[in-house]
Amino acid sequence: MPSQVSSEQILFTRGVPAAEALPNKLLSECMQAALDGPDGKVILQYGHNGGYLPLRTLISEQYAVSPDQVLVGNGSLHLQDIFAGFLLKPGDVVFVEQPSYDRAIKTFRRRGAKVVGIPLDLDGINLTALEQAIAQQKPVFMYVIPDFQNPAGVTTSAEKRQALVDLAERYDFWLIEDVPYRTLRYAGESLPLLRDLNAERVVTVSSYSKLISPGLRVGYLIGPTALVKQLTKLAEETILAPVLPTQAAVVEFHRRGYYASNLEDLKRLYAPRLQAIVQALKTSLPGVPFAEPEGGFFVSVTLPTDFNTTNLLARAKQSGLLLTDGRDFFADPYTANEDPQQGERFVRLPFCALTPEQIQEGVKRLSTLVQS
Amino acid sequence: MPSQVSSEQILFTRGVPAAEALPNKLLSECMQAALDGPDGKVILQYGHNGGYLPLRTLISEQYAVSPDQVLVGNGSLHLQDIFAGFLLKPGDVVFVEQPSYDRAIKTFRRRGAKVVGIPLDLDGINLTALEQAIAQQKPVFMYVIPDFQNPAGVTTSAEKRQALVDLAERYDFWLIEDVPYRTLRYAGESLPLLRDLNAERVVTVSSYSKLISPGLRVGYLIGPTALVKQLTKLAEETILAPVLPTQAAVVEFHRRGYYASNLEDLKRLYAPRLQAIVQALKTSLPGVPFAEPEGGFFVSVTLPTDFNTTNLLARAKQSGLLLTDGRDFFADPYTANEDPQQGERFVRLPFCALTPEQIQEGVKRLSTLVQS
Repeated sequence: MPSQVSSEQILFTRGVPAAEALPNKLLSECMQAALDGPDGKVILQYGHNGGYLPLRTLISEQYAVSPDQVLVGNGSLHLQDIFAGFLLKPGDVVFVEQPSYDRAIKTFRRRGAKVVGIPLDLDGINLTALEQAIAQQKPVFMYVIPDFQNPAGVTTSAEKRQALVDLAERYDFWLIEDVPYRTLRYAGESLPLLRDLNAERVVTVSSYSKLISPGLRVGYLIGPTALVKQLTKLAEETILAPVLPTQAAVVEFHRRGYYASNLEDLKRLYAPRLQAIVQALKTSLPGVPFAEPEGGFFVSVTLPTDFNTTNLLARAKQSGLLLTDGRDFFADPYTANEDPQQGERFVRLPFCALTPEQIQEGVKRLSTLVQS
Repeated sequence: MPSQVSSEQILFTRGVPAAEALPNKLLSECMQAALDGPDGKVILQYGHNGGYLPLRTLISEQYAVSPDQVLVGNGSLHLQDIFAGFLLKPGDVVFVEQPSYDRAIKTFRRRGAKVVGIPLDLDGINLTALEQAIAQQKPVFMYVIPDFQNPAGVTTSAEKRQALVDLAERYDFWLIEDVPYRTLRYAGESLPLLRDLNAERVVTVSSYSKLISPGLRVGYLIGPTALVKQLTKLAEETILAPVLPTQAAVVEFHRRGYYASNLEDLKRLYAPRLQAIVQALKTSLPGVPFAEPEGGFFVSVTLPTDFNTTNLLARAKQSGLLLTDGRDFFADPYTANEDPQQGERFVRLPFCALTPEQIQEGVKRLSTLVQS
């Protein structure tokens, strides 16, 4: 009903799953099975400080590593906080893609890092800029989201993946690859994980927030055994143990085959929404370049300088369109050779929690605002 | 069957609930109701970053505060980490009772504090020692467990509670009261919370680990609105949001009246165990003084200097008796006017997860070892 859509508020603010995609019935069944099952007492007691062992084992099989290379915690943001707390001393340098996930940038800063943004091209990090930055100051680690990046929607090319691990090896820094969207691929073929190219230099972080439910807060980290052992000790000192019944429910969700069927349901729901936003951008903002992703949650545009982005957030709100401040995704207000207003012209458009009609209407409103 | 007990290993190592006290069936029912109920989508989505609002509201009613004075997180240890991270700069001083909860001591140290142990008498902190310590260096906060203290089993007297808040007010420091055992009172009457005496100086921390289940990791913190607002922001930056389905299950556990009935079940189970350990100590270690608690999880003894505590942990293990190293509970290896070997002679005896027969046998073994 277009008349409804045209009058309602449209939220392009957060990358959240669609409410209709949250599998309440299945999780309820899994939770019951876990609490009534043979491990029922185990998951209500102290213990399993590195995460519920059957879940660590399940994840280790998926990634072809050993369970002691897996740490499961209460969401991947907290695992990022823990490894940042472990690896960083005040004043240390961390590289992120520019733009990048705003909460990760804040976490590294809170842990004392100087966070440097390396410009992200439509096929991944700008390697020239990265090498220039390394020449200036070597990072302790570089944080990247190689698949369907948040916020830009960019997938790093195979060549750039190889270049990243080569640079990490040559200049001795860690790569943190955050891959929560990777499995949500609606078309095309997956490229290798960074850890597939060099497992000794890479820490992989992911979660079930986009694949089952964010409220469960089940995230995990994979890395070399020695590092994971130290991070597990720090996690234990920080939280004792993660919440266990929800982790047991995730295991049960896999055992019953719900993970696979739920993933197919998600793709069926989200793929047309991705098509809708790509089509809407091409129609309403013709000629504005953007990374056209084959999966994930985000498409983003950087509006041309001759578009009207003055006071955009407030004007959008008046038109019933809620946007996130693009500047939040930029570690540096601006870097040399770059447009200082780039963040202001950057618009992230999470599409999964909106219907194709809402997406179309939202992009139309955006287009009217910026071209007026 | 005494013949079985006399040959089995007895674990006086950790303060864990008895396995038979974990309410799997009831929690399974509550979790199902939460996931199938009107907030089912809410608890699987992002949001409620300061904790599931109905739980914050429930706790706020119990403590007669407003919901924005309550922060609910994934276990109280993490909340201690968050307020320590917020309040402390490297080199700041924190006071703890001596002995105190080992993980709290470690957390404050990791956050940069110099942790000073103030001797604990059988009726609470030694006030003379506390005033002397304040005269030397004012703490940012003092961490106390006023009810059925971990590890000593001490309950702070009414007079000493008043003295603590008076000193905090006069010398301008925070009091952190950790009260996870308070509700598990098997005899006698509760004394006021420190926050009842001065709510502006006190942060109250507690959890459902001992009252429902540790694996749920549902802990909370109560303090002045302005402080809780800042801690909530820091919690959000650190973990985004806590795990929500388990918090919703706790709310449902209250709504259905299970909290009250479960608490009565716990008291019925644990009270005879407390009686058993008190009786066993009086019988097997006559004349050794200890705080005789009216609730909680712990009784502890400091063995006289003429007892044989050399290599006690290893000798106990050979006798099938597992003990925790008493030194872990001492922030300072020794303080002036104190016996330097106090930690070595300190034996914590958590009694809730052992049957009266196991308790009797365990104390008998201990007595044989230290009096030989």
